[in-house]
Amino acid sequence: MTFEILSRFLQKETKVNTETLRSFLATQHAADIAQFLNEYDVSLDWSVLSLLNLKRQAEVFSYLDRGRQTDLARCAPPNQFVAVFTAMDPDDRVDLFNALSEDEQKALLPALSQVERDDLQHLAAYKEGTAGAIMTSDYAALSPYLSVQQALNKLRRKAFNKESVNRIYILDDDHKLLGSVSLQALIFAAPTTPLQHIMVPETYAVHVDEKQENVAGKIARYDEPALPVIDAEGRIVGIVTHDDALDVITEAATKDFHKAGSIGTLAESIERAPIALLYRARVFWLVLLVFGNIFSGAGIVHFEALISAHMGLLFFLPLLIASGGNAGSQASTLTVRAMATGEVQLKHWGHLLSREVLVAGLLGLTMAAAIYGISAWRGGLDIALVVSVAMMIIVLVGSLIGLALPFVLTRIGLDPATASGPLVTSLADIAGVLIYFSTAQAFLF
Amino acid sequence: MTFEILSRFLQKETKVNTETLRSFLATQHAADIAQFLNEYDVSLDWSVLSLLNLKRQAEVFSYLDRGRQTDLARCAPPNQFVAVFTAMDPDDRVDLFNALSEDEQKALLPALSQVERDDLQHLAAYKEGTAGAIMTSDYAALSPYLSVQQALNKLRRKAFNKESVNRIYILDDDHKLLGSVSLQALIFAAPTTPLQHIMVPETYAVHVDEKQENVAGKIARYDEPALPVIDAEGRIVGIVTHDDALDVITEAATKDFHKAGSIGTLAESIERAPIALLYRARVFWLVLLVFGNIFSGAGIVHFEALISAHMGLLFFLPLLIASGGNAGSQASTLTVRAMATGEVQLKHWGHLLSREVLVAGLLGLTMAAAIYGISAWRGGLDIALVVSVAMMIIVLVGSLIGLALPFVLTRIGLDPATASGPLVTSLADIAGVLIYFSTAQAFLF
Repeated sequence: MTFEILSRFLQKETKVNTETLRSFLATQHAADIAQFLNEYDVSLDWSVLSLLNLKRQAEVFSYLDRGRQTDLARCAPPNQFVAVFTAMDPDDRVDLFNALSEDEQKALLPALSQVERDDLQHLAAYKEGTAGAIMTSDYAALSPYLSVQQALNKLRRKAFNKESVNRIYILDDDHKLLGSVSLQALIFAAPTTPLQHIMVPETYAVHVDEKQENVAGKIARYDEPALPVIDAEGRIVGIVTHDDALDVITEAATKDFHKAGSIGTLAESIERAPIALLYRARVFWLVLLVFGNIFSGAGIVHFEALISAHMGLLFFLPLLIASGGNAGSQASTLTVRAMATGEVQLKHWGHLLSREVLVAGLLGLTMAAAIYGISAWRGGLDIALVVSVAMMIIVLVGSLIGLALPFVLTRIGLDPATASGPLVTSLADIAGVLIYFSTAQAFLF
Repeated sequence: MTFEILSRFLQKETKVNTETLRSFLATQHAADIAQFLNEYDVSLDWSVLSLLNLKRQAEVFSYLDRGRQTDLARCAPPNQFVAVFTAMDPDDRVDLFNALSEDEQKALLPALSQVERDDLQHLAAYKEGTAGAIMTSDYAALSPYLSVQQALNKLRRKAFNKESVNRIYILDDDHKLLGSVSLQALIFAAPTTPLQHIMVPETYAVHVDEKQENVAGKIARYDEPALPVIDAEGRIVGIVTHDDALDVITEAATKDFHKAGSIGTLAESIERAPIALLYRARVFWLVLLVFGNIFSGAGIVHFEALISAHMGLLFFLPLLIASGGNAGSQASTLTVRAMATGEVQLKHWGHLLSREVLVAGLLGLTMAAAIYGISAWRGGLDIALVVSVAMMIIVLVGSLIGLALPFVLTRIGLDPATASGPLVTSLADIAGVLIYFSTAQAFLF
């Protein structure tokens, strides 16, 4: 069976057997059901979700786009939304809560239990972009004095939800994090062993104010399925799991991609973001770069007499300045990405610079050779000499600009990813114009 | 204590107390020790690793760069490398094995047990880039007819290694994958329950030939810490874990970044890759794009008479063609990234095109307004009109090229990421030259 049955149901075809649909949905992952609903072009009501039990409703709901979630929240039958909301994972729940309007938040709170309300308001208070904002309060914590048998009994009584996490955190009486015990260690230990004997001391806890990218980096680095989050007093306040780390890393890569294309912050999908938002994300750099290019224009005007005397020089202008920009884009892309993955740090600049001189020198020679024949044929040997020498220097200088810019930006405390292709290209353009016509002036007069 | 003690030890200072160093190393994560060694500027010998027990040696060794690993393999005391190699996780082991020379592989094999040898050769046979090449054979599998108690006893006898994985796979008598049981379900079930009663049927297994990116995508999508890998007969052959998925996703993003900067395949770190490799990765696109730019040059030559009569037009040439290229880069970056994250598919092209016309139209108007004043001041109202109209059209056309190219490439079966900034810029340059001078010709003659 395929999702076609769900599609027919959504189109309100009468002949769809809801029992068949129900059993089809039972075999599908919540993420797949949600994706189908996300891509479906009509506004959703609760008819599909109502076919699932509460736990599954909450799962599917968690995977829906934020916009779909808030739409559903607004058209929910009494109590149904509250029930689903309560059944969601705490971290998903708080993200949704933050997306609701103030009035909707106020309407929702009284329907929750005191414990849930406290947990929600507690989580909602953490700043965006920090560990606190992506952590979940859904973890198991026990005292170090319990025996393995007592621990297992406790866990059985209050089954924790997260299947993906298999560590139990060990806290002292003040909720300070001492260490952790894996579920495996628990199974393999003798029933009377106190937890403190099989506990691994905790040294990789992250701070609740730590940046999400750092936390995700640590999860990736230590290959851990989850890391505990502590507050300033060393008390555990939540855990960040590997799936959140993956989302953070993907989002960080998207941000870097956008920066590389000189696009501003754009948190929404390009398919659904309002036009005004897309406009705002692009207009700043576009206008800023235009003013950079005025220098290139001024450079050309400076050499107007030379150009008038040798109009043939103009033929090679686009390819020379483009080559400098392209070589610079390559160098900055390599550097920015290597910095983002942690492969390259500020201190490596000297080493990379000397290597870039070699590589860009070779590239410049190759490009000079590639263009010599064409320029000799079009403009004669004099022009060919000018174009080839200029090409060699332009590729080298463009590359060095591309390599240096990320380091310079890092050094002055800016994000190296801002050394985008278009910015490097603009700088290389200016350098290209000056190098080309200066070379021509030197050789032709 | 800090890593300084390790640094002093590596520099062969005599006063370093190895007991102090040993206890310091015991508190550090293997990944951190390995990173310190990776960044250390001298060639490594086994003196540091020998301070650790075998399990930790294998952990640290696994985190070392491939080059460091092969160096150490070559200078190892007899049996030490074999011992570490045998203690490594199967997936790390096979990656290292594949990096050794044929002679070294042949020397290593006889030192392994028959089981290890078979496992290694089995894993080494899978094609790079497939699920088979990143999976590990380190998983627990049991029969559905065992009771929970029997299962726990079996697991205790043959403790499996991967702390990060908490699923036991259930196989029939032919090794076919039926489903799985989480460690938690095992703990919470009554001891006499047969596993088949608490088993979750397996519907998300990946095929051994499936592309790594797909597998990583599924792990991300389903928030699973691991997915089982099956062969054509449905038999389990390994598992892929969340940490491998994270590596694959990071590598895929790096590849896309490099493509966006029109850089070819570069598997090695820019800090350590041989110069020849860096050169090869960059020269192809650089030379190819130069020939694209010849069309821009030809475009300029075509309008030589116009330019001679109005040399002032040249001032605006760089900023007009750069603006088209920048707007195009923005549009292609947004599209390529949204395609990579799965947000946008081929079928969305019509919707995105109509939105791009709106956004780029607004951007074009803004840019035209931004440039009108300057061009009026520099060249008079006639020139200002030409430049503003040309700017408006160039930004629109550049954006549409940037948006369309990834879709066109996908449609003809190529990777949309090849629609790099430099490629879009080159195309937009040609369009820019033609639009600018055509507009000028229309208005000024």
